[in-house]
Amino acid sequence: TLAAPAIAQSNPKVTWRLASSFPKSLDTIYGGAEVFSKMVSEATDGNFEVQVFAAGEIVPGLQAADAAASGTVEAAHTVSYYYWGKDPTWALGAAVPFALNARGMNAWQYHGGGIDLFNEFLATQGLIGFPGGNTGVQMGGWFRKEINTVADMKGLKMRIGGFAGKVVEKLGVVPQQIAGGDIYPALEKGTIDAAEWVGPYDDAKLGFQKVAPFYYYPGWWEGGPTVHLLFNKAKFEELPKNYQSLVRTAAQAEDANMLQKYDYLNPAAIKQLVANGAQLRPFSQEILAACFDAANEVYAEITASNANFKKIWDSIVAFRKEYYLNMQIAEYNYDTFMMVQQRGGKL
Amino acid sequence: TLAAPAIAQSNPKVTWRLASSFPKSLDTIYGGAEVFSKMVSEATDGNFEVQVFAAGEIVPGLQAADAAASGTVEAAHTVSYYYWGKDPTWALGAAVPFALNARGMNAWQYHGGGIDLFNEFLATQGLIGFPGGNTGVQMGGWFRKEINTVADMKGLKMRIGGFAGKVVEKLGVVPQQIAGGDIYPALEKGTIDAAEWVGPYDDAKLGFQKVAPFYYYPGWWEGGPTVHLLFNKAKFEELPKNYQSLVRTAAQAEDANMLQKYDYLNPAAIKQLVANGAQLRPFSQEILAACFDAANEVYAEITASNANFKKIWDSIVAFRKEYYLNMQIAEYNYDTFMMVQQRGGKL
Repeated sequence: TLAAPAIAQSNPKVTWRLASSFPKSLDTIYGGAEVFSKMVSEATDGNFEVQVFAAGEIVPGLQAADAAASGTVEAAHTVSYYYWGKDPTWALGAAVPFALNARGMNAWQYHGGGIDLFNEFLATQGLIGFPGGNTGVQMGGWFRKEINTVADMKGLKMRIGGFAGKVVEKLGVVPQQIAGGDIYPALEKGTIDAAEWVGPYDDAKLGFQKVAPFYYYPGWWEGGPTVHLLFNKAKFEELPKNYQSLVRTAAQAEDANMLQKYDYLNPAAIKQLVANGAQLRPFSQEILAACFDAANEVYAEITASNANFKKIWDSIVAFRKEYYLNMQIAEYNYDTFMMVQQRGGKL
Repeated sequence: TLAAPAIAQSNPKVTWRLASSFPKSLDTIYGGAEVFSKMVSEATDGNFEVQVFAAGEIVPGLQAADAAASGTVEAAHTVSYYYWGKDPTWALGAAVPFALNARGMNAWQYHGGGIDLFNEFLATQGLIGFPGGNTGVQMGGWFRKEINTVADMKGLKMRIGGFAGKVVEKLGVVPQQIAGGDIYPALEKGTIDAAEWVGPYDDAKLGFQKVAPFYYYPGWWEGGPTVHLLFNKAKFEELPKNYQSLVRTAAQAEDANMLQKYDYLNPAAIKQLVANGAQLRPFSQEILAACFDAANEVYAEITASNANFKKIWDSIVAFRKEYYLNMQIAEYNYDTFMMVQQRGGKL
């Protein structure tokens, strides 16, 4: 008989398809899936291939998770709040108003049980997922006119994501769902008054400052949005253990890498935007406080009736309080000093 | 002839030794190397083993990089500023006073050319390295008496790391080099007046608040210190390409993981420290400004004569200015609002 090789082949050939929710033009967020795919391929000498398809190539961007759940593809790279309409619990894996910033979200996910809690929920959808990117605090978006008071928000037609839309509705905003490519003409014609997209680097590509020059911050509904790598649960469990572990490691690396890329690219982009006519405006404290109260009303409504949501939200809230206590000590004071130097032209 | 297996074995057996600069008691920072080792081992079905040795097991903690450079071990997990006495350029891979915070450091390293720049220098030492952990902004340390003015710093005997020691010397501080385990008795006896260690979670284990209750912040000399995974360059280059890639991916994942762990553990630790008698004190603006000026004097002196240092420092400084401009827009305003809510008991 022929002797088997002494060491079993541990990198079997596996080819997966991944549906991204993003267009290729977003090299940051679409690019995250390519970074993940490259890490997995290189570590296995090309034996584990994850083919990345942009939004629309296999399924529309907002159906990426469904495609992975049904097995049309094995994987998706998406933001889980896109699916909040099925169940608002989906949004908690990504970002909800006035939750954790990027570092807090990662700390809660990786060490506070967040990944496991969200996977308990995802399992009911036939999925398993890991954080696979973060944009940092997003911007509050582009406004045709300045808004200073809560009264200015009444009747405002704003392109804003689903769950946040539910919050601003309480203040009289009329949320609009518009695909990325249709925002510019809608702002130009005045069909809408405002639109949020991502942050400086991604926004700069779309030229919004020409039609809606007031660029508000912060995007309080996305303090540290997690982009997810979602996998068909049965397909993931069929993977050899070494591939499962590699997927988790590469996801954690790619998760970090996306934020690192944004943090490197956004500074130059914000300067370019201002040079091109963007006018930076902070949301007033009155507006932020009203939005915070409105968000808390929404949380009270949902937790009263949705046990899945409540379980995860309670975990985030418990950590949020402690996290923001600690962050105002060393981190905040260091950053404040450095920012004062920057404004003083001393850096 | 015997046919070769159709697919070449891509996970050959490799066993490496890694010298950590840290004792096992620091589960955060020592634990980072174990996390890295587990990632690499699992992804290769146990074929690529990195055995982690605590400080003192093979070489003393502060000789970990030398052991990797000479080939005594293949790898080290260490902080590159420990070796600044050989050449201050070493410190730039880790942290120097008033440089970038953790997110900024990672952005510069992964997307601003920082990793390549530091590896140009490490190559001259026989090493190649990747970021393998970050603690976030450290605390300013434990003081037996309050210090409010620059005059209060004169003659102060403080246990403080090498490069930062060079800066505070300009203000009359007498820097002391004392191993971690010897700090407590030195503070208790009054042989030293102050000591910096790491941050809330690690510091809480040593009970400093009993002998030096004033806990100052921020640790302006360590805004976002990078812990490095360093490898013997020749040994790294002998690895198969898939292992080289896996090392980079696992390092990036572990780099993120350490900060995530600190960010999760520090909040509970700071509350415990305060409950146990620690008294939080911010460094006064007078002291911070004087330290900032002293640091700039040191940078001017070194860059005048050290081209390696100048090349890397110029790259950090160029990014630092842009980074801290951008961070004061969405990130700072979001965090500030959340901290105000925390202080108001609304989170």
